[in-house]
Amino acid sequence: MCQLLAMNCNVPTDIVFSFTGFAMRGGRTDTHHDGWGIAFFEGAGVRHFVDHQAAIASPIAELIKNYPIKSRNVIAHIRKATQGLVALENCHPFVRELWGSYWVFAHNGDLKEFHPVLDGAFRPVGNTDSERAFCYILQTLRARFGDQRPERAALRGVLEELVAGIAAHGTFNMLLASGNELYAHCSTNLYYLVRQYPFLTAELSDEDVTVDFSEVTTPDDRVAIIVTQPLTTNEQWTAFVPGELKVFLDGIPDAPGNAKIV
Amino acid sequence: MCQLLAMNCNVPTDIVFSFTGFAMRGGRTDTHHDGWGIAFFEGAGVRHFVDHQAAIASPIAELIKNYPIKSRNVIAHIRKATQGLVALENCHPFVRELWGSYWVFAHNGDLKEFHPVLDGAFRPVGNTDSERAFCYILQTLRARFGDQRPERAALRGVLEELVAGIAAHGTFNMLLASGNELYAHCSTNLYYLVRQYPFLTAELSDEDVTVDFSEVTTPDDRVAIIVTQPLTTNEQWTAFVPGELKVFLDGIPDAPGNAKIV
Repeated sequence: MCQLLAMNCNVPTDIVFSFTGFAMRGGRTDTHHDGWGIAFFEGAGVRHFVDHQAAIASPIAELIKNYPIKSRNVIAHIRKATQGLVALENCHPFVRELWGSYWVFAHNGDLKEFHPVLDGAFRPVGNTDSERAFCYILQTLRARFGDQRPERAALRGVLEELVAGIAAHGTFNMLLASGNELYAHCSTNLYYLVRQYPFLTAELSDEDVTVDFSEVTTPDDRVAIIVTQPLTTNEQWTAFVPGELKVFLDGIPDAPGNAKIV
Repeated sequence: MCQLLAMNCNVPTDIVFSFTGFAMRGGRTDTHHDGWGIAFFEGAGVRHFVDHQAAIASPIAELIKNYPIKSRNVIAHIRKATQGLVALENCHPFVRELWGSYWVFAHNGDLKEFHPVLDGAFRPVGNTDSERAFCYILQTLRARFGDQRPERAALRGVLEELVAGIAAHGTFNMLLASGNELYAHCSTNLYYLVRQYPFLTAELSDEDVTVDFSEVTTPDDRVAIIVTQPLTTNEQWTAFVPGELKVFLDGIPDAPGNAKIV
């Protein structure tokens, strides 16, 4: 199984600390060594890095750990190939454009007998079930809403049905981001936490590193981290309920029936 | 004006030498400091790096200069903003998917009153004339050929008409790549050379660096370099004829009526 990591914030924030622990799982503290990738939104633009080397051996992962790229919305993925070859085109996250915005997607899990009809608007380049699911999601959103991006509540409603249908084919823990919005769906394993004032010191579970967030933040900063398995040993992580879709915006999750972020 | 660089080869080759000279133009030997980008095909996959910092100041450009990513098809671009803000979403090259393949595009020049009707299949994320032209090209190719990628000769024929129409709006030096194929159109300034056996020593015109290609190649290697202005002082560069479209495959250019690469 693969590992997912996302960060959603109210101000541009660097992901160096969380990525440092996460990247250790790519071949050192875990066996996910069939490639990795990360995508950072920066305004409407995206920085997208993929590598089919293990994250611990990758010069590009080394760059990310040392170069604090600031972003309000980030998705990262470490791959353990279950479907599809070890090849660059099969590394998550995947990126496509819809409604004049980039969309970024990563998936953990396996889908069985998932062969939706793709009309050609979005077509997989590689041969994973994950990229197929991403193309199917974007195709369905475009068919449903036409040429205009809908309001977030409408988008969320359609997405909720859509991912439930896909998840019926197996395991579908997934992250989908566009602009400042992050959609996270849990089939089996997904955790999140919100770091906000008063900031504490956190200890990485995968490496002997601590960081005192109060030294690197302002009281107004708010950062949500979403991950397959908790990254730190001394913070309170909340497990998603299987079947749950959450939307994160400005570092806050919403919940069904909760209009906090709308 | 911006600067373009492409490399098309018959075996995976690193672009470190040519990129080192080219990156100097991003803020040191020339005034192109409004961002840069590079995309490498690797099989069906693409590594895509963009940065809105000047190429000489960018840690990512530093990585590319030191980490020999091997590719058969590369497009790079250094930007001097003439249309559109200095922002990540306006950095070339741009990437989209069509027919289950990635397409990479970069443009040098300015288009006046170029506002084609875009039907929504490919929509610009940023606000440059260049990205608009790229979306229009892909939309037209898909409308013309439907859901199946055509033979190269057919594609080339349509592309030739299409870019001539766009170039009528101003200056349209452009590079378009997919898989192992590279299409290069010259409006005003574009040069190429083919490095092949017997390999010689080349001297960068922008930096005091030489490389003896005979030490780093085999006799079967063949590499075409396409660039806005010649990169080396002691090699024979061929100027494109204004209005000319060339296709490069396996490091060889074709020419109209010449079936060398077909």
